Amino acid sequence: MSDTTPQPAPRIDIAAVGDALLGTWKTERLASRELAADPRLHTIPGQPMAEHRERAFGQLGILVEHGAIQRAFPRALGGGDNHGGNIAAFQELVLADPSLQIKSGVQWGLFGAAILHLGTAAHHERWLPDVMSLQLPGAFAMTEIGHGSDVASIGTTASYDPETEEFEIHTPFAGAWKEFLGNAALHGQAAVVFAQLITRGVNHGVHAFFVPIRTPDGELLPGVGSEDDGVKGGLNGIDNGRLHFDHVRIPRTNLLNRYGDVAADGTYSSGIESPGRRFFTMIGTLVQGRVSLDGSAARAMSAALAIAVRYGNERRQFPGASSRETVLLDYGQHQRRLIPRIAQTYAMTFADEKLLTVFDEVFSDTRDTDENREDLETLAAALKPLSTWAALETLQEAREACGGAGFIGKNRLTGLRADLDIYATFEGDNNVLLQLVGKRLLTDYSAQFKNADRAALAKAVASQLGDRVSRFGLRQLGQSIADLGQVARSVESVRSPEAQRALLTDRVQTMVSEIALALRDATKDVPKSNQRAKAIANENAFNAQQHKLIEAARAHGELLQWEAFTEAIERIADPGSRQVLTWLRDLFGLGLIETHAAWYLVQGRLSGHRAESITAYIDRLITRLRPHAQDLVDAFGLTPELLRAEIATGIEAERQQEAHDYVEAQRAAGAWPIHEKELRAQQKSAAKRASA
Amino acid sequence: MSDTTPQPAPRIDIAAVGDALLGTWKTERLASRELAADPRLHTIPGQPMAEHRERAFGQLGILVEHGAIQRAFPRALGGGDNHGGNIAAFQELVLADPSLQIKSGVQWGLFGAAILHLGTAAHHERWLPDVMSLQLPGAFAMTEIGHGSDVASIGTTASYDPETEEFEIHTPFAGAWKEFLGNAALHGQAAVVFAQLITRGVNHGVHAFFVPIRTPDGELLPGVGSEDDGVKGGLNGIDNGRLHFDHVRIPRTNLLNRYGDVAADGTYSSGIESPGRRFFTMIGTLVQGRVSLDGSAARAMSAALAIAVRYGNERRQFPGASSRETVLLDYGQHQRRLIPRIAQTYAMTFADEKLLTVFDEVFSDTRDTDENREDLETLAAALKPLSTWAALETLQEAREACGGAGFIGKNRLTGLRADLDIYATFEGDNNVLLQLVGKRLLTDYSAQFKNADRAALAKAVASQLGDRVSRFGLRQLGQSIADLGQVARSVESVRSPEAQRALLTDRVQTMVSEIALALRDATKDVPKSNQRAKAIANENAFNAQQHKLIEAARAHGELLQWEAFTEAIERIADPGSRQVLTWLRDLFGLGLIETHAAWYLVQGRLSGHRAESITAYIDRLITRLRPHAQDLVDAFGLTPELLRAEIATGIEAERQQEAHDYVEAQRAAGAWPIHEKELRAQQKSAAKRASA
Repeated sequence: MSDTTPQPAPRIDIAAVGDALLGTWKTERLASRELAADPRLHTIPGQPMAEHRERAFGQLGILVEHGAIQRAFPRALGGGDNHGGNIAAFQELVLADPSLQIKSGVQWGLFGAAILHLGTAAHHERWLPDVMSLQLPGAFAMTEIGHGSDVASIGTTASYDPETEEFEIHTPFAGAWKEFLGNAALHGQAAVVFAQLITRGVNHGVHAFFVPIRTPDGELLPGVGSEDDGVKGGLNGIDNGRLHFDHVRIPRTNLLNRYGDVAADGTYSSGIESPGRRFFTMIGTLVQGRVSLDGSAARAMSAALAIAVRYGNERRQFPGASSRETVLLDYGQHQRRLIPRIAQTYAMTFADEKLLTVFDEVFSDTRDTDENREDLETLAAALKPLSTWAALETLQEAREACGGAGFIGKNRLTGLRADLDIYATFEGDNNVLLQLVGKRLLTDYSAQFKNADRAALAKAVASQLGDRVSRFGLRQLGQSIADLGQVARSVESVRSPEAQRALLTDRVQTMVSEIALALRDATKDVPKSNQRAKAIANENAFNAQQHKLIEAARAHGELLQWEAFTEAIERIADPGSRQVLTWLRDLFGLGLIETHAAWYLVQGRLSGHRAESITAYIDRLITRLRPHAQDLVDAFGLTPELLRAEIATGIEAERQQEAHDYVEAQRAAGAWPIHEKELRAQQKSAAKRASA
Repeated sequence: MSDTTPQPAPRIDIAAVGDALLGTWKTERLASRELAADPRLHTIPGQPMAEHRERAFGQLGILVEHGAIQRAFPRALGGGDNHGGNIAAFQELVLADPSLQIKSGVQWGLFGAAILHLGTAAHHERWLPDVMSLQLPGAFAMTEIGHGSDVASIGTTASYDPETEEFEIHTPFAGAWKEFLGNAALHGQAAVVFAQLITRGVNHGVHAFFVPIRTPDGELLPGVGSEDDGVKGGLNGIDNGRLHFDHVRIPRTNLLNRYGDVAADGTYSSGIESPGRRFFTMIGTLVQGRVSLDGSAARAMSAALAIAVRYGNERRQFPGASSRETVLLDYGQHQRRLIPRIAQTYAMTFADEKLLTVFDEVFSDTRDTDENREDLETLAAALKPLSTWAALETLQEAREACGGAGFIGKNRLTGLRADLDIYATFEGDNNVLLQLVGKRLLTDYSAQFKNADRAALAKAVASQLGDRVSRFGLRQLGQSIADLGQVARSVESVRSPEAQRALLTDRVQTMVSEIALALRDATKDVPKSNQRAKAIANENAFNAQQHKLIEAARAHGELLQWEAFTEAIERIADPGSRQVLTWLRDLFGLGLIETHAAWYLVQGRLSGHRAESITAYIDRLITRLRPHAQDLVDAFGLTPELLRAEIATGIEAERQQEAHDYVEAQRAAGAWPIHEKELRAQQKSAAKRASA
């Protein structure tokens, strides 16, 4: 793209790399992108909220017409039983308008999916056709004002009355009001309401109920109240609002009873005995939201970088030593800002593909085991926080890299960022999700040492480290390289994928084992007999480790991304693409190690010299990748209809050329005025000559 | 605020600390806050752009009525000649509406200030009264589509015609169109246009011209074109747009001629001989924009933290070991997210006060020397990037810490963030500003070693380090503390302000000297005689160091903030306040050292054990500061009228109390259903007893 940076061999095969990025569900993704290119589905920057809401609702109809939302539903009802393809297609819709995307997610991915996964055949037949056709728009009423992340503690109750064979849905205080629900303020005619199921004086925990809330004309039904959340930081095409229920009665059969049922006489039954496991099984069926956001975040990052790299390759600023002004992406700082983000986007895209594959296996029943479900949840909880945060950072970096132009609505970066902001806390607050991952890592870790005492544990940690040292040569990695004399050679051993994997793995394992030890140490003196004191000590100990545990979970997610990137390269045949992507993967892996260098240094895993040589090698990788930046973002395959940013249309290159041509023409015509600086310099040297 | 965290002694004296934060221009700040509390000046979330623009224009009239904008102008014209007070008052307006603030900044801080600082008496008398009264709304036409950061290279020309004694203002190609100008799309009737002044065939560089652009009825004048930038990522109350000029003629006397003039016959004259110094002197008079943004960013951070800390002290989530759910700010991770940001806000507020003092001295002519002007520019260029970035990060962290509620418009966090986004690239792109600082650091550094060869330079670096080692005991700091046995004692020596200052100072100096050496080494083999080769080698060497130089400038800015915080504590008499603020300053200082731990480890300034003990001490400081979090944000003095966030009104505490009371009442009445989990546990132990 930039005339100053011809691409040397090797070059990537853009089509082949593009295919790798599109992955298994290429067909569905391309179909969805074709739809996302339709101007009827595009964001209109600054459209007032009321109009945007109506537009988004209308856009859902267009999705239905084009068969874009049916994939996940049963074939018997006109669906495709294609769970992976459904999410893949959904992810691409972020390129049309995140409001449209998330509103469709509310209707079909939450409201519809809850009926599908928590309901049974009768529910499917009764409601899903209307849900799919949008005849029945609905809300997903899980979150409450007082309870977001802690769903188990929600305050809404569903009390069974055997006299009338009805449940009474009730929100007994303001904190129990359902909150932030898409489709609640305006369009929803029903809601899947999560409530504590109470029958015969026993609370059987959270279950889901189908509750009509409005007439088709939009009148609220008796006992149902709604409040509008009004303007939000983004996603203003969605009519988020609150719902509250004052003793609203629904038939017993409106309980979505796949995992728990109430007989006419009020007897509760469930195929899952443990109330805890039952709750997590129900909640687990809704993991698709997290999977959806993970890939959507990667797509938004792709768009941000496609815009910023194109602009950075055309825009010039400050005169260079060569006669023309310097292209932005030729500046060291500009490269440091954008090129590692390209590497991260590749890693996240490949990691999401892996996540989606596990998701599809579980939901297509091909590998639906408890263990796979648990792995799926952990994987989603590890990846979604990292990608949604990275998307916000990348959109911001791209916005700033485009200067004032990045702030203009029609260049899309600020709008996407505003819309994606909420991705960091919905479908699970990112910190809470990472804590879940951390707890899983701790559980897996301590499962190995059940009943072991501290000494045994510590010994195991040491021997585990020993294993890794011998297996991956970490001991050598840690050695001082001062005697090698040359920075260039010193990085060789860290460059290998084995070394990168070893360093990244080691960090996760060491952090987890240190936290496990700290937790054990902090509570070991409290007698087990004093349950309350033990509970408080455990809580305090855990709280003191919370930050570290979340960091360990982040390290785990980063390792998963690195592994997915590495596996993806192995599937690519073209040697040029493999070479360039290997550099990009190294930039990602070594970038992580550089980011966490303090940890590696403190733990004695890297010497100071080695850490410095990693930074120097990263600088070299960035320089090496710079000529490929445009190819790498072109491989995202985002057509002008999908990018729709004025500054990414070539307009800046045209303007630069026009300015250049003007100055050259003026110069040629002798009409270009001499600058006072130059004149003074000429006069000075003339005076010098005269006096000489 | 939180019932779980009673404040132990010492406590801060909120009023005394509040006074310290308000600083020298307390009166002006409080007057401005009183105005900012006026509902007529408040943002209306989601207001459509056209309405918001009209509202913002009307709000400027309210500022005029209240005498809020006159402070900086000459007493003779009804102003106050109060430069520091003017900026202080301006900064507080961010709490009303950033659009209103920045639109007033365009009118009086840019358009008006350019006439004031670049024009002479006749200009002042002729235009300033109407500028001050808003009879004459104007634009500040410096930035072009093709040139933002590099003002010296703009394409607009002002060619003098001695025949008619006029300048002809012309934008010869699209890249030269003036861009992103507030008041350009709608309200501006004139503009201060920056253009290359050409007379008698010589370009004398960039000068400023007063150019009428519209009639009072809003009709564009002949030859003037305008385009609307449309919707932006924020600040949509400002009518940003483009201006282009097709051979527009203005009288010779419309040149703002304080630093350069053209006689009737076309002779150019200037009191500043060097065209370079002349340009930087003119541009330097406009430094107030950067000073303004620095303090505005600190005010926005204060608001974000006041909202998030209040909510974090009232909101509960997940049952704790005590019977109630846990208050968010009692979670270790929540503390790690918010409390260091409070420390940063204090540091930035005190640093801005120092900057403002230097600014006031220079502009009040009390200390207007070239050296002071240069220091002022460097100080502003160092602080503005750090504070504007920190404000964006803090607003985002606060938004996420408030979960979904943080995303709702009426809670203000997203709106403030969207508006402040552009602060990172306007009034100087943050990276470009830090590069300026870095260059100044390099210049100061190399001035010490003019004509020194590499060996002398290296020796000087070493001896300089040696000095610092002996002066501040750095050698001891770097020692391993393994033998001390206790982490608690090991941090003692780093805790002292002297040690913090030494470590922060050392980092700046070492980074700068390393860059200086690298630059010298990279070009030393290119013969001076080959000027072009030398220039290219210099450019490449500099580019390779650009990222590091920007990091060095950042380190310099952080040191300045730390010093300002430390000096501010010395001025506080109340012992409790001093103690708590000292912890807060330590958190800031040690937090910086923790952030840059990898550098300190690589350089051998800290041992791994010492670095670990710093992290452990930071954890302790955060725990110690946690009970003071509410006091510390209360000291910002932001009344409910200034905060205006629903979640910071106590509404969450009321909801929590209502829910708690409901459950307690149900329990007391025996109407609270037993949970299945508890029932199962009871049945299990009953069965156990029966079988025993």
